Amino acid sequence: MTTHARPGATGATPSPVATSAEHAAGPDAQPDAIELLGLVAQLEDVAFARLAADAAEAPSTEQRLELSRFAAAAVERRERVLARIAELGADPVAALRQFDHVLDDFDARTQPSTWWERLLKAYVGYGVADDFCRLAAEGLDPESRRVVLEVLDDASHAELAVAELDAAGADDGVLSARLALWGRRLVGEALGVVQRLLVQRPGLVRLVNEGAAAEPAAGPEQNAGTDVVAAPANAPTKLFGELTAQHTRRMSRLGLTA
Amino acid sequence: MTTHARPGATGATPSPVATSAEHAAGPDAQPDAIELLGLVAQLEDVAFARLAADAAEAPSTEQRLELSRFAAAAVERRERVLARIAELGADPVAALRQFDHVLDDFDARTQPSTWWERLLKAYVGYGVADDFCRLAAEGLDPESRRVVLEVLDDASHAELAVAELDAAGADDGVLSARLALWGRRLVGEALGVVQRLLVQRPGLVRLVNEGAAAEPAAGPEQNAGTDVVAAPANAPTKLFGELTAQHTRRMSRLGLTA
Repeated sequence: MTTHARPGATGATPSPVATSAEHAAGPDAQPDAIELLGLVAQLEDVAFARLAADAAEAPSTEQRLELSRFAAAAVERRERVLARIAELGADPVAALRQFDHVLDDFDARTQPSTWWERLLKAYVGYGVADDFCRLAAEGLDPESRRVVLEVLDDASHAELAVAELDAAGADDGVLSARLALWGRRLVGEALGVVQRLLVQRPGLVRLVNEGAAAEPAAGPEQNAGTDVVAAPANAPTKLFGELTAQHTRRMSRLGLTA
Repeated sequence: MTTHARPGATGATPSPVATSAEHAAGPDAQPDAIELLGLVAQLEDVAFARLAADAAEAPSTEQRLELSRFAAAAVERRERVLARIAELGADPVAALRQFDHVLDDFDARTQPSTWWERLLKAYVGYGVADDFCRLAAEGLDPESRRVVLEVLDDASHAELAVAELDAAGADDGVLSARLALWGRRLVGEALGVVQRLLVQRPGLVRLVNEGAAAEPAAGPEQNAGTDVVAAPANAPTKLFGELTAQHTRRMSRLGLTA
């Protein structure tokens, strides 16, 4: 078992914080970039495995075909990230492999018992992970950031989950209530994964801090509604606030209480 | 349980045999084409599911990544076949769905107990199914035939199986002997699937017959070493001869006795 850090407590980790002059160019910039790219590649690989497993369980042929298309798209996204790692001169397989068990705990604690729980798990679980990577990506060099944001922008799988869950929940109050509860459990566990990552991976903390420091220049990826000037030391607090806000937004799109 | 026809006995099925003038243009040509295309799409879908499951079981990260690439490629191939079905004005999902359980029996009877047995199952099982579709494709209209042959020509997955099995078997006589035995069981079950298909699907028999009748014009896809002039009535006999010969060739590539 890894130690759980409370949200916000992670900001106190005495990891070297890059100044904005070093932004994306400091001596640790490249290993940090490889670390985040490895995580994104791993998450896409996990997405592939989960979507393929979902396809095998899908209640209809249409859903099976659709889910396998999403699984194939996850492979394609993973390959783009691996190619970027290779461009940076690192070993793509090694970069991905270091995160081989990153979601094992999460998966063990959140075994879905119905098709709807499975869909919501993908939507909520991927959602938090993607948001985390998107925020940390703000600390990357421009080209790596472009690759990560492009890869994470492909939300077609989320659209399926939304459409199906929405259609199912719309006329079933019991299902909605149960899924709302399930969503809260999922987000709690997902935020736990992020906390553990920040404790174990100072490189990711550095990227989050650099991203927060650089935010005024973040351009179109900047999140509207978060115009507080972020000091690096508050970045993790801000990060968890942002992750929770995005989760709430996702749940309301489904008509579910976060 | 379905009735097992002996190889060769199927030639006696009193299904209407198209003359060469009707080749790929008779009144049943399009439903027959949809049927074969549906089978090919289904086999690619099954390939996706099996490769994805193999990826989940792969002993190394490299193999996992490689197998998921093959799984994604199977989706891409399936989509090309589904697109052709749509071009012909039929419902792609319905065409594929009619073969939803085509390999269930085969899978139940051939549960691999090791990674090597799993690899060999994919290589031998897909091999027989692909060869069957390739031969039946000779009876298709030119465009559908082109799509099917192109899709079936992508042998990268087979190359992986060959490389891995070859490396593993080369210095292990016990493994080789066990895999040779497994290969014989697999091909027996795979030929049984083909027999059942021919009994249940007169459309496929028609395509095989038409392909055999049209063979002198088959061009680059023609199989060298089978220059006997084929009478349509012998087509299924010839088919099983061909399938067995291809299997023997595959096994010897692995240094295994067929």
